[in-house]
Amino acid sequence: MNILDIIERKRVGENLTKEEIKFAFMEYMEGHIEDYQMSSLLMAITINGMSFEETLTLTDVMLSSGKKMDTSKINGIQVDKHSTGGVGDKTSLIIGPIMACLGLKMGKLSGRGLGITGGTIDKLESIPGFRVSLTSHEFIHNLNKVGFTECEQTPEFTPLDKKIYNLRSVTGTVSSIPLIASSIMSKKLATGADYILIDLKVGNGALIQNKSDGVKLANTMIEIGKSYNKVVIPILTNMNRPLGDNVGNALEILEVLDILKGKTGLLRNLCIELASNLYSKVKKINIDIATREVTRVLDDGSAYTKFLEFIKEQGGNIDALETAPNLMPIKSITSGTLKDIKAKSIGSLVLQLGGGRKKKEDHINYGVGVVINKHIGDQINEGDTLCYLYQVDNTDYSSQALEAFTIVK
Amino acid sequence: MNILDIIERKRVGENLTKEEIKFAFMEYMEGHIEDYQMSSLLMAITINGMSFEETLTLTDVMLSSGKKMDTSKINGIQVDKHSTGGVGDKTSLIIGPIMACLGLKMGKLSGRGLGITGGTIDKLESIPGFRVSLTSHEFIHNLNKVGFTECEQTPEFTPLDKKIYNLRSVTGTVSSIPLIASSIMSKKLATGADYILIDLKVGNGALIQNKSDGVKLANTMIEIGKSYNKVVIPILTNMNRPLGDNVGNALEILEVLDILKGKTGLLRNLCIELASNLYSKVKKINIDIATREVTRVLDDGSAYTKFLEFIKEQGGNIDALETAPNLMPIKSITSGTLKDIKAKSIGSLVLQLGGGRKKKEDHINYGVGVVINKHIGDQINEGDTLCYLYQVDNTDYSSQALEAFTIVK
Repeated sequence: MNILDIIERKRVGENLTKEEIKFAFMEYMEGHIEDYQMSSLLMAITINGMSFEETLTLTDVMLSSGKKMDTSKINGIQVDKHSTGGVGDKTSLIIGPIMACLGLKMGKLSGRGLGITGGTIDKLESIPGFRVSLTSHEFIHNLNKVGFTECEQTPEFTPLDKKIYNLRSVTGTVSSIPLIASSIMSKKLATGADYILIDLKVGNGALIQNKSDGVKLANTMIEIGKSYNKVVIPILTNMNRPLGDNVGNALEILEVLDILKGKTGLLRNLCIELASNLYSKVKKINIDIATREVTRVLDDGSAYTKFLEFIKEQGGNIDALETAPNLMPIKSITSGTLKDIKAKSIGSLVLQLGGGRKKKEDHINYGVGVVINKHIGDQINEGDTLCYLYQVDNTDYSSQALEAFTIVK
Repeated sequence: MNILDIIERKRVGENLTKEEIKFAFMEYMEGHIEDYQMSSLLMAITINGMSFEETLTLTDVMLSSGKKMDTSKINGIQVDKHSTGGVGDKTSLIIGPIMACLGLKMGKLSGRGLGITGGTIDKLESIPGFRVSLTSHEFIHNLNKVGFTECEQTPEFTPLDKKIYNLRSVTGTVSSIPLIASSIMSKKLATGADYILIDLKVGNGALIQNKSDGVKLANTMIEIGKSYNKVVIPILTNMNRPLGDNVGNALEILEVLDILKGKTGLLRNLCIELASNLYSKVKKINIDIATREVTRVLDDGSAYTKFLEFIKEQGGNIDALETAPNLMPIKSITSGTLKDIKAKSIGSLVLQLGGGRKKKEDHINYGVGVVINKHIGDQINEGDTLCYLYQVDNTDYSSQALEAFTIVK
């Protein structure tokens, strides 16, 4: 078998055989196929797609590339939650503590930032001391003790997915349905949860930019789940606008704390909706009852306490969290009603500020980012501060920032 | 500007601006954009295409990446000839000496092998001592003295094309019309010839596999030529079958000697056709008169003498040429009429034997290859030798070799 023939077949839109997929991806993992060959194949897959059979095979190859979690030592029902990512998405860090307070075990293996969308691991790493690498022994220990843990994919689990994920993030191949589905599902299958909630972001700030692609991805993941006897619960949520007010690693951790301390708004509502759906499915109870339970652990501060317990268990010192030193207010140059805040523009801006990766080797400035100061529907006067940029330098990004805000007279 | 945005725009089929093309390709040349990012962009271009404006811009970026030949010191009319490559194509090495005998100056900058198609530079390098790297001073000196020279693209001329060409050959992105057109034309424009013959191979053994793509490529190159006031003469020739009997680097040099010493057949006829077309255009004479002149210098041995002069001028010792030590006859397992010899299968076989490159860093075994022993239309009996493989090992490649021959009862 020859990688050039395989690339060529996908280039012209043919379906690859099980053997070809296994050959291309396993040889890549072992270093016999180069990054520049895999990125070419990934682009051909991104443009020309994959059949369900091909996607299932790729999921299986990724799953088999590492070991599976031994879930027999976890006391309780194991759930998992995944977001397809988006600008400002920090829902996992709010839902995890809620689930733990309700007696479920939520353990997540997560990835790093992909292009304009941040990764939860990068966000957690902005907390000084926080350990994102755990052994599977530690993972299970934390789950049994705290009820919530989140750590980086280790070489033990789906090592192939990690390598592919890193490459996709720097080669314009992030928005492929079969590649997203196999990446998410292989990770979820490796950790062994029986109930998997997928928060499927759709919109200009997300990997999936339109609803029909969202539905296709949801169905693909449900079908993959069925092949492995797992319940997949996909929920499509809007991602045309940034999720919450803060975008950027450390800034997002600060917003998680705000929400857990009682801040209201769309982000809190979304977290309640997602958590309630998962809880009602697991417990087989009415959604209203589930919502009441979820709201209770948020309001009585137990989810906040649980979050601090989770951070401490993994070595993080939340009091040492730092944001970038230079605060630049961005003032409106027009008056009118704020009609839209474009997630994609905000995401690109944070990437420019140094809060994301353009290349695999890029380092992240954890403290940079954007804090949005106005909401959709607000009346804006010329000179009002639309947002604040947290920067490490004094570069003028005002034109890029203003582009994100649509103000109509 | 951001390479990920550029890749993304081409992924969804949009046209890139001049600035975007310049940014992506120049930054790649300077090492600021990685191989794996460029290969992803090249695959998106290969699948989604480029407009004529984009192709012209890319040609210009490639041309501007190096210096142009100072043709003022060349005594005589400078012509150039290019083949889009194919299996067993060694026509340049026959036409060059013919043109030189007729008083024209043919100087070529050439590339190395791309996938299953060999490169003339690799073929020449199979001759011990032959120098494929010349300075532009040597290039002009050889042209004025011998009338024919062929050397490797140097970093002086179109360095960007060389880097892109190497990457395309190992990433399944060789068969893209805009990439082929800009690669060929930038090289030809850098050497400054006023008449450029393009032997456009079409068929399963060539980069271009169907006639409509061939016509599209021909027209693209004519138009690019007009933008630079050059006469481009494209001729579409069949490449479903290997060109000549020998495929493999040293073996092809041996066949060039055979043709120049009088061997008849399809390869000789094609060389006469191509050379006559070019000569008649330059001299503005009737094709029959041109053909008579071309045939004369072939038949009287002067082209043969000229070829030896060319090899010697660049340091080659033709007597030291070696083929691989193990000769394996491939015998027919059936009887009937030989209907077809698939160029693509023969090309893949030579690649497997070690006569080509799968990866950029691969080394070539110059002596390996295939010598075809039967011609289309021949009656074949079971046990007849269809071809000989020249190998460095004793691996049994008979099933791959037999696949290339279609024998019908």
